[in-house]
Amino acid sequence: MNETTEAIFAYDGLDRVMHEKARLGMLTSLAAHPKGLTFGDLKQLCGLTDGNLSRHLKVLEEAKLIKIEKGYLANRPHTTVFLTKHGRQRFLDYLSVLEKVLHDAAQETDEENSSNKNLKPRPA
Amino acid sequence: MNETTEAIFAYDGLDRVMHEKARLGMLTSLAAHPKGLTFGDLKQLCGLTDGNLSRHLKVLEEAKLIKIEKGYLANRPHTTVFLTKHGRQRFLDYLSVLEKVLHDAAQETDEENSSNKNLKPRPA
Repeated sequence: MNETTEAIFAYDGLDRVMHEKARLGMLTSLAAHPKGLTFGDLKQLCGLTDGNLSRHLKVLEEAKLIKIEKGYLANRPHTTVFLTKHGRQRFLDYLSVLEKVLHDAAQETDEENSSNKNLKPRPA
Repeated sequence: MNETTEAIFAYDGLDRVMHEKARLGMLTSLAAHPKGLTFGDLKQLCGLTDGNLSRHLKVLEEAKLIKIEKGYLANRPHTTVFLTKHGRQRFLDYLSVLEKVLHDAAQETDEENSSNKNLKPRPA
C-alpha cells in the first residue's frame, strides 16, 4: 500500500437507519412492492414479530423513509406501508454503496504491501 | 400478495458480526488484500480510530474470521491482519446475501396486493 491516504473502505453511505438487518429487509420488500404492503404482509415477508415490526416502522417513519396509511378494508382497520419518494431515493443511494462493497470485495490488489516482504516472525 | 408464506425478506444470512458497518469495511479491505494489511493500513483504509479498530479486530478474531500476526519490521513491532480461510468463505456467503438484497430490491412485483384495491381511506 502506498498512495492510499483515503478511507476508501469506510462506507459512510451505509446509513445505520437503513443498514440494520430487519429494516434492510423491510425497505427491500417495500422497494419491490411500489403499491405498498400491509402490516401483515411485512410481518410475514420479513419474519418479524408484531413488536419488532412496529418498532422498526417507527424508526423508518421518523426518518421519513416510509409512509403509513391507515384505512379500512371490509370495515376493519387496515394499515398499508409505502416507501416515500425521499425514502426510495435514499434507499437507492444506500444500495449503490452495497454495490460498491461487492465490487471492492472482489478486487484483489496486486500493489500489495511491499512492506510485508520484510516482515520477520516475532521471536517466541 | 398471495402465495408468499415465507419470510423471503428476512435475510438471516446477514450475520451481525460481519454486517456491522466498520467490520464490513475491514472484511472488504482484507478480502481485497489477500497478503494481509497492517494495523496502520486498516486504520487508514477504514477511517477508524485505534480504539475502534482494536475493538472490531477482537470481535472478528473471536469469530475466527481473521488472523492477527505479530512480527517485527526494522526492529519495530509490526502487526499484520489476514482473513482466515474460514473467514473468507463466510464472508463470501455473506456477500452472496448482499447480492440477493440488491437483486430483490430491483424486483418490482406485478402480482401486487390485490387486497389494496378495496382499501378505503379512513374517515377523518
